[in-house]
Amino acid sequence: MKAWQFNGTHKPFTRVEIDEPTAGPGKVVVDVKAAGLCHSDVGILEDEKWLAFTKVPIVPGHETAGVISEVGEGVTEWQVGDRVAVWPMLGPFGYGVNGGWEARAEAETEQLVRIPEGLSFEKAAAATDAGMTSAGAVFGKGEVKAGMKVGIIGFGGLGQIGARLAHLEGAEVYVAEVKEDVWETAKAQGAVKVAKSITEFKDDNLDVIIDFAGFGTTTNEAIQTVKFQGKVVLVGMGRLEATIDTNPMILGQVTLVGSNGGSKDDIAMVMKWMASGELEPTITMIDFEEIADGVKMLEEGKVTGRLVAKVAD
Amino acid sequence: MKAWQFNGTHKPFTRVEIDEPTAGPGKVVVDVKAAGLCHSDVGILEDEKWLAFTKVPIVPGHETAGVISEVGEGVTEWQVGDRVAVWPMLGPFGYGVNGGWEARAEAETEQLVRIPEGLSFEKAAAATDAGMTSAGAVFGKGEVKAGMKVGIIGFGGLGQIGARLAHLEGAEVYVAEVKEDVWETAKAQGAVKVAKSITEFKDDNLDVIIDFAGFGTTTNEAIQTVKFQGKVVLVGMGRLEATIDTNPMILGQVTLVGSNGGSKDDIAMVMKWMASGELEPTITMIDFEEIADGVKMLEEGKVTGRLVAKVAD
Repeated sequence: MKAWQFNGTHKPFTRVEIDEPTAGPGKVVVDVKAAGLCHSDVGILEDEKWLAFTKVPIVPGHETAGVISEVGEGVTEWQVGDRVAVWPMLGPFGYGVNGGWEARAEAETEQLVRIPEGLSFEKAAAATDAGMTSAGAVFGKGEVKAGMKVGIIGFGGLGQIGARLAHLEGAEVYVAEVKEDVWETAKAQGAVKVAKSITEFKDDNLDVIIDFAGFGTTTNEAIQTVKFQGKVVLVGMGRLEATIDTNPMILGQVTLVGSNGGSKDDIAMVMKWMASGELEPTITMIDFEEIADGVKMLEEGKVTGRLVAKVAD
Repeated sequence: MKAWQFNGTHKPFTRVEIDEPTAGPGKVVVDVKAAGLCHSDVGILEDEKWLAFTKVPIVPGHETAGVISEVGEGVTEWQVGDRVAVWPMLGPFGYGVNGGWEARAEAETEQLVRIPEGLSFEKAAAATDAGMTSAGAVFGKGEVKAGMKVGIIGFGGLGQIGARLAHLEGAEVYVAEVKEDVWETAKAQGAVKVAKSITEFKDDNLDVIIDFAGFGTTTNEAIQTVKFQGKVVLVGMGRLEATIDTNPMILGQVTLVGSNGGSKDDIAMVMKWMASGELEPTITMIDFEEIADGVKMLEEGKVTGRLVAKVAD
């Protein structure tokens, strides 16, 4: 079967012919219907650091949705024909084991999340990375619940999803974003207040602040703004260091926690809201054959929203 | 009755005559038998920042042990004659309400912790601040349990207590301390390994690291050393800012939490180990009449261990 292959840093992805997978015990084979492309797929080509946790060669693709076409021995919960998205953090999928840039992918049952009725494969694929990471920060590490006051720093790709999900789940959302041209969108998506800096919400006594920007200063401002014994979740890597004032951290008993990825429940929540129409991801579609061109589009900053490759029916 | 009184920044504590307290509903009166002095009692005289949460005038003293001499209406759990230590964080005791530098102190029943048989009042008093703060960091914020691997940065006053308590409760203790002359003591107190920097324990996969030094660099080293999804507790204020690398924080999903004070359970745990003889606080005793002189001793760095004023029997 056809697959895309990573051959090492500074080498192009190549279209190769590999053996069809078969479903081992406790595993399934998924016929891939949609597979996302991500900025990390640009990164892996440019930065040797990725080699620390990537096999070479490997089939990339960590945003995968499709239909189960084969179930292995001992698999009882899943059947041929089930529509599934793949939780990528086990493996990790597309790094330690072959991912979704191939016609058929082998997956562990522990990785499967059922796609709700009516949700397209391309949206389901988009739910497994940006969606999961946003939900993982807000609900996983941030433990946001209905009724809580939640600050969101950065209304970019991840921040928009995080803010919208927090609003949909019943939280009161406060957005800090330097670009004023997205303020109206933020309010339309449910933000009760929008400002340039999170510190303007000091008197609102925020329970949790999620820093999707991660510019160091934003993290420190979050620590100074969050309520007594509140929590700051750090997701964004705008800069790779932060200078924080420890006085408010200690006296305020503030928790700062790094967030990376998310759980199957996070993917399920994102897909639930996508299926309801309340969460509308912006998706640019390409054909599965065009993945190498798609990576170039990402490199050149020419993509709006998430880029997903679709397999022709 | 006689009391010591705080009269505002840059003014000396004065010995004054105030009304005897009576036990209001749900409260008790404690005949003070021992009251600790603390570096914060020097700070309050020198730094206006304390005025933000201190009433003026007020009777200081947040490390208090004594005997209940009167119980108010509705108090059923406590009786006249009970030996008690006072949890200082409610009030706070000695800041928002009169503290222990007086012959008789009014306290809420929610503040009372029973002193174990055989433990002296002066040791009980010492348990309520340094003891509570160390235990609060290790067991409260750090959630240390038996069998866990715990790093302790800084083997000074608080760090020594924290390391000892963690060892006594069954944790495996790793001490980082730049002063090599205390390494033998650390080992005698139960540390399995001692080194200059916590980073030397990277391969030991520490579950929790408590930074009692708080020099910024120590906090960042802790973040880089703790295990995946591990926790760093920040207590020390050696410097008031820390520059941290966010990459290991995010990818390692590390939690950094500020700790300040502790709970009644923390005080009870400290007193339990003091009563058993396993935790031996170093205490310098003065007479209750000498409190102003005691504060000067602290200011001049002339005190070994905790300084406690004792009321003559």
